[in-house]
Amino acid sequence: MLLSRLVELLGGALQGEDREISGASTLDEALVNDITFLANLKYREAVKDTKAGAIIVQDALDLPISQIITENAYLYFARVLHLIYPEKPIRPGISKFAYVHPQAQVHQDACIMTHVYVGAHARISPSTVVYPGCFIGDSAAVGEHTILYPNVVIYDGCTIGAHCIIHAGVIIGSDGFGFAWDGKQHVKVPQKGIVIIGDHVEIGSNCTIDRAALTSTRIGSDVKMDNLVQIGHNVVVGDHTIIVAQTGISGSARIGTGVVLAGQCGVAGHITIGDGVTAAGRTGIATDIPAGKVISGFPAMDHKHWLRVQNVYKDLPELLKRVRELERKVKDLVKD
Amino acid sequence: MLLSRLVELLGGALQGEDREISGASTLDEALVNDITFLANLKYREAVKDTKAGAIIVQDALDLPISQIITENAYLYFARVLHLIYPEKPIRPGISKFAYVHPQAQVHQDACIMTHVYVGAHARISPSTVVYPGCFIGDSAAVGEHTILYPNVVIYDGCTIGAHCIIHAGVIIGSDGFGFAWDGKQHVKVPQKGIVIIGDHVEIGSNCTIDRAALTSTRIGSDVKMDNLVQIGHNVVVGDHTIIVAQTGISGSARIGTGVVLAGQCGVAGHITIGDGVTAAGRTGIATDIPAGKVISGFPAMDHKHWLRVQNVYKDLPELLKRVRELERKVKDLVKD
Amino acid sequence: MLLSRLVELLGGALQGEDREISGASTLDEALVNDITFLANLKYREAVKDTKAGAIIVQDALDLPISQIITENAYLYFARVLHLIYPEKPIRPGISKFAYVHPQAQVHQDACIMTHVYVGAHARISPSTVVYPGCFIGDSAAVGEHTILYPNVVIYDGCTIGAHCIIHAGVIIGSDGFGFAWDGKQHVKVPQKGIVIIGDHVEIGSNCTIDRAALTSTRIGSDVKMDNLVQIGHNVVVGDHTIIVAQTGISGSARIGTGVVLAGQCGVAGHITIGDGVTAAGRTGIATDIPAGKVISGFPAMDHKHWLRVQNVYKDLPELLKRVRELERKVKDLVKD
Repeated sequence: MLLSRLVELLGGALQGEDREISGASTLDEALVNDITFLANLKYREAVKDTKAGAIIVQDALDLPISQIITENAYLYFARVLHLIYPEKPIRPGISKFAYVHPQAQVHQDACIMTHVYVGAHARISPSTVVYPGCFIGDSAAVGEHTILYPNVVIYDGCTIGAHCIIHAGVIIGSDGFGFAWDGKQHVKVPQKGIVIIGDHVEIGSNCTIDRAALTSTRIGSDVKMDNLVQIGHNVVVGDHTIIVAQTGISGSARIGTGVVLAGQCGVAGHITIGDGVTAAGRTGIATDIPAGKVISGFPAMDHKHWLRVQNVYKDLPELLKRVRELERKVKDLVKD
Repeated sequence: MLLSRLVELLGGALQGEDREISGASTLDEALVNDITFLANLKYREAVKDTKAGAIIVQDALDLPISQIITENAYLYFARVLHLIYPEKPIRPGISKFAYVHPQAQVHQDACIMTHVYVGAHARISPSTVVYPGCFIGDSAAVGEHTILYPNVVIYDGCTIGAHCIIHAGVIIGSDGFGFAWDGKQHVKVPQKGIVIIGDHVEIGSNCTIDRAALTSTRIGSDVKMDNLVQIGHNVVVGDHTIIVAQTGISGSARIGTGVVLAGQCGVAGHITIGDGVTAAGRTGIATDIPAGKVISGFPAMDHKHWLRVQNVYKDLPELLKRVRELERKVKDLVKD
Repeated sequence: MLLSRLVELLGGALQGEDREISGASTLDEALVNDITFLANLKYREAVKDTKAGAIIVQDALDLPISQIITENAYLYFARVLHLIYPEKPIRPGISKFAYVHPQAQVHQDACIMTHVYVGAHARISPSTVVYPGCFIGDSAAVGEHTILYPNVVIYDGCTIGAHCIIHAGVIIGSDGFGFAWDGKQHVKVPQKGIVIIGDHVEIGSNCTIDRAALTSTRIGSDVKMDNLVQIGHNVVVGDHTIIVAQTGISGSARIGTGVVLAGQCGVAGHITIGDGVTAAGRTGIATDIPAGKVISGFPAMDHKHWLRVQNVYKDLPELLKRVRELERKVKDLVKD
């Protein structure tokens, strides 16, 4: 594909020679027919040595390499990848190694691969791909153009929207964690609700999302979840929210829209995180957080304040020494 | 079901009109034929607006709604749910899409669904349900009335008690993490033990429980484990213990009975946690903890002390300022 | 097997009676025909009560029990276990319940069990065992003498070396977590790279290892990973590195050789951890760490310094009290 054709389709300004590119790679590994990009300035030095035939940048480089100049190089590069590398074609049909309940509704344009189980009254929409080993429970539903990678489990009654990507080993709709103590043992609180997942959602490998006790656990549209994330029962996650790996959200928490929870965060139950909140990695959130805040630490606090706290924290032995020194001097002064 | 019938079966006192209820839901979502409950006082305000036909409470409400008054509304509600919503019936038999080794013993009243593997000398008890994609290794055993949800893996020789619920993707009996360095590379310490799980245990999705090196990893009866919990080799967990999501317990730790480990806790290897200990979310436990303690933080400390520590911690920049001010003043005093 | 035969094969010095042993166990549970070992001095007291027929030790015991004296008792014991307990024999062949694509290459000495899927152009080497429910994607490859336990998923194009052990539920090659915001929604950055895993690697249950965006996520040889570990896209892990349970490594981080990351650590993206670094449990690593450092805490610091910091931290309320007392005294002094 010619660089001029990319600019025609995606915008941006071409600087330098128009040329054919056939692949895309990193600064380090790109070859002469590849296009690359510079977004993280940490990698600026690598630009001089790249063998790439073209580069996508935000600011024109003073180098003899073909450049596409655009506002957001990473976004532009993502779009180039979608153009260069087509998606795997879908082969519709039901594998003879799969089990589909006679009362399930599987659209003829869906692809059901080997060792899949589709329960009674389950609905699989057109252009949906269900990889081997998936389990779709009774009355569960999967929207169109959604991909379920191998060994995804969707418990009875849960629904997944359209254009979603659910990675391998994800469990949707297992029982929420609810028990009442009767004085001798735990009595299970039956979990009779469901999970409802919006459109354009991506869920990373081996995540777990519990069904609600009575109503529904809801994941909004355009939510992106990394691997090994835990979502408790009755949680509501707003649209466009990003949840990074190994974060856990306790039952009945409400997460706003456009929130970012970085890796290994924890959110307590029954609290509300406002729209647009950003939590740095490992933040432990135990109370409501107003919209728009940037937070860190445990307990969660304003990120800038936390940086100052950490600065003192790491020098605590020094602070103790200063207090001891003061005590010695004051003792002397009092004696005088 | 009439409210008076519930009171007959489960106790409590009926206040207001006796009426028929056919479902159960939350304060917010209950309709006129539903029963609801109030246990968390955070939701007290929602009572006025509920459309529920009846409510389970601990203290009588001054409202014109039918009420069942009982000591523990949550426990009572759990019991009502068990009465109103019957469990899914078991359809005994072995799917023709399953593989059962000729030397396995599967009771005729068990249900073995599609794409299940049952190894040699494995034993599956009556009224046990094995969902699609499960693997039951050689000589493994599953007790009666136990449910294995899809894609559960039980390695060779491990045993699960009766009336357990094992959620999807749980791995029981994978090798403990043991290696010895020979100067050039790691030599695997073969893991020859097993895992033994008691009765009435519930294990959440995608948990991992490792087999012992030589003896057995043991999970007591009535233990309840949330999702994504990790249990190392040789660990012993006492009866009635609760382990919340994403907690990890290192090898050879001993956890007492009736312990509560909240979400994202970590327990170091070879330590003992006494009976009835409660650890708040994210507690990092590196030393033995005596019975009955309530702990928090990392390193774990008495919970109330930790609250005081956190109170000073979050104001460390202010404390530093005060020390600087003292230093300035003392310097002046010394000069005088 | 005679103790003298063990010494002949593995070295060490026999002290006391030569005798036949047929099993191996812990100090507590060993019987008269078992050999045991003492490596962790915490268990020294249990030696007096052991019923074992022989013990492997580093320093001769003044007890009337047969002893093998060696430099590293744990390593020696590991080797004894390999001798006493032979591995499960491999039964080559492809289950009729498995699906193997006509263009896959499965060696005739490999064992493909039930409900396995092997994609087009995938390559399975001799003496490799693929347990039930595994998925081997198109053009993926698995080296010889490697074991894939049940429900392992290897996405298209990823490669596993020889003599590896991949435990149940591991997901290798799911999409890295990359999105670009276009002002209205997240645009997926297609993940076109692969995962390459070396030889003699062991990966614990339910770990997740993401494919690179463009190039490869690389796990070196002799790497040992515990359960529920998360490895982001483009990460490089050096040979012999140990990663304990529930640790997460963010995208594009580079981990050296011989590194130890204990349980529940977190590593930020795009940073470098030098060779031989050891991080204690729960360390949060946000910046480059030079080779050889021993670190703890969050943010990560020198381990010994962290111990001192924690010592002050846990007494912060006391420190605050001392500062208040100083303020009171200094106020009095200033007044005078």
